[in-house]
Amino acid sequence: MTEPAPGRERRRTGRVLKLTIEYDGTDYVGWQRQPSGVSIQALLEDALAPFEGKPVTVHGAGRTDAGVHALAQVASVSLDASTHDPATLHRALNAVLPADVRVLSVDEAPPEFHARFAASAKIYEYRVVDGPFVSAFLRRYVWHVPPRINHDAVREAAAALAGRHDFAAFQAADGASATTVRTIHEIEWMAGDAYDRPSILRVRGDGFLRHMVRNIAGTLVEIGTGRWPPSAMPGILAGGDRTRAGITAPPTGLFLVAVLY
Amino acid sequence: MTEPAPGRERRRTGRVLKLTIEYDGTDYVGWQRQPSGVSIQALLEDALAPFEGKPVTVHGAGRTDAGVHALAQVASVSLDASTHDPATLHRALNAVLPADVRVLSVDEAPPEFHARFAASAKIYEYRVVDGPFVSAFLRRYVWHVPPRINHDAVREAAAALAGRHDFAAFQAADGASATTVRTIHEIEWMAGDAYDRPSILRVRGDGFLRHMVRNIAGTLVEIGTGRWPPSAMPGILAGGDRTRAGITAPPTGLFLVAVLY
Repeated sequence: MTEPAPGRERRRTGRVLKLTIEYDGTDYVGWQRQPSGVSIQALLEDALAPFEGKPVTVHGAGRTDAGVHALAQVASVSLDASTHDPATLHRALNAVLPADVRVLSVDEAPPEFHARFAASAKIYEYRVVDGPFVSAFLRRYVWHVPPRINHDAVREAAAALAGRHDFAAFQAADGASATTVRTIHEIEWMAGDAYDRPSILRVRGDGFLRHMVRNIAGTLVEIGTGRWPPSAMPGILAGGDRTRAGITAPPTGLFLVAVLY
Repeated sequence: MTEPAPGRERRRTGRVLKLTIEYDGTDYVGWQRQPSGVSIQALLEDALAPFEGKPVTVHGAGRTDAGVHALAQVASVSLDASTHDPATLHRALNAVLPADVRVLSVDEAPPEFHARFAASAKIYEYRVVDGPFVSAFLRRYVWHVPPRINHDAVREAAAALAGRHDFAAFQAADGASATTVRTIHEIEWMAGDAYDRPSILRVRGDGFLRHMVRNIAGTLVEIGTGRWPPSAMPGILAGGDRTRAGITAPPTGLFLVAVLY
C-alpha cells in the first residue's frame, strides 16, 4: 500500500468485488460488450459506473455467446472510488438491471482476484428435448430435436470425450485459441423423458474452446439420432477436423452452470 | 342419428375432440376471444377452422385471465366436416400455433362432452417468491414479494378456506356469478426457499369465481407478511365483503394445472 503524498486527499486502496450473476440470454448479444446490441457485460458496467463516477470494466469467467444462459456466471470488478458495501451494491444492481439479468451475490474478493484467470474449472449444461413438441415454458431454454434420441448411444459416445484431449474438432470454425488442448473432468448425459423434462448434457472442464460445448452437443445428438454410430466419436475427436464433427447446437439450450475456483 | 334426405350428400355424423393445452399466458389477453388482443381460444379456433372449412367454436374448461398460464387446460370442439385423425390434428396444430401455446394431446371424446360443463374439479397453483429478488428464469411465472413470508401463518389462514363456503369475499369486484358458493376440496401451501424455488399455493375445487384464486393468494400473502393475523381469515371469508379481503395477486403467478372429469 502506497502512502498518499502529504497535503493530498488520502487515496482509498482499490478493492475487488466478485459478482455471481444469473441471466436469461435470449435477448442479449452474449456476455461480451459489442456494438451490435446489448450485452450482459455492458449492462453490468453501465450499472456500476455511477457508483465509481467513471467507467468500470467487469471481467466475466465465461464469455457466453448470444442467446446462451447462465445460472451462475462469475465476474470481477475493481473499484477504487465507490465506498458502498457489497449488500448495498447488490440491491442497487438488481434495482436497475432488467429482470432477465439478476445479481445473485456480491462479495469482497482478494485484490488479485480475476474471475476468468482464477477459474480452475467451469460446468456447462446443454438441454435437449426430443419428440414431437416441446413445452411452452421451455421454448427458450432447450434445443428441440424431433427424432427420438438413443440415450445409450449418446452415453457411449460422450465417454470418449472425458480426459485431456486436443478438442480442435469441436472448436468454432473461426476459433483462434493458442492451444486446443483441454481437459474434460466429467461428462454426463441425463436422459429426459417428456416434452417438459429435457435431457441434460453436463460437462465439467478446465476450459472450453469457442462453441465447444455446442459442437459436442450437436455431435452427440447426431449420434443419438443415428447419423453415426457411437464408435465414430474417438475418430471424430482424434481427427481434429471441425468439418468431420456434427452440427453446432443452437445457443438456446446452453447454460453456464458454475465456475469453480 | 338423422338419415340424410335422398339425393343429398350423406351428412357425416359430428364428433367431439378433447384437447389438452399448455400455454405461457404472458403475451395473451387470456383464454377468451376478445377484440382487444390475441386470445388462446382464438388461436385454437383459427388453427382448426381450415380443417373444417368454416369457423369452429372451442370451449375451454377454465377461462383464464390475461397473463395467466396453463399446464393442462382442457378444451372441447365439435367437428362435422374434418375427417383428420386426432394424431394428424395434433401435429398440425402444433405446427401452426406459436411456440408459447402447445397442444399436449388430442383425443376423441363422447359426443356429449363439453370441457367446461363436464368438469368436476379444477386444480390451480399460485407461485410466489419472497425475498429481495427473483430468478431471471421465473420472472414471468411468479409473483415477487420482497418481504419474507411467515409460512405457518399462511398455512393456518389457508386451512380456514377448505370446504363449502360462500366465497363472495374473494370474487372479482365485477364478478357476476349466479351463486358465489363453491367447494374447495383441498388447499395447500408449499413453502419455497429461494429466489428460484417459489412457494406454491395449490387449490383443488369444484369451481372458481372470477379472480378467486388470485384474491385468495393476495390475502394469504398479506397475512404471511403481517397485515393481518391468520385468525382474521374466517372473518374475512364470512364477511362476504371483497373490500375487506386482501389485494388481487398478479396474473403472472397463476397456473391452471389440471381439470378433472
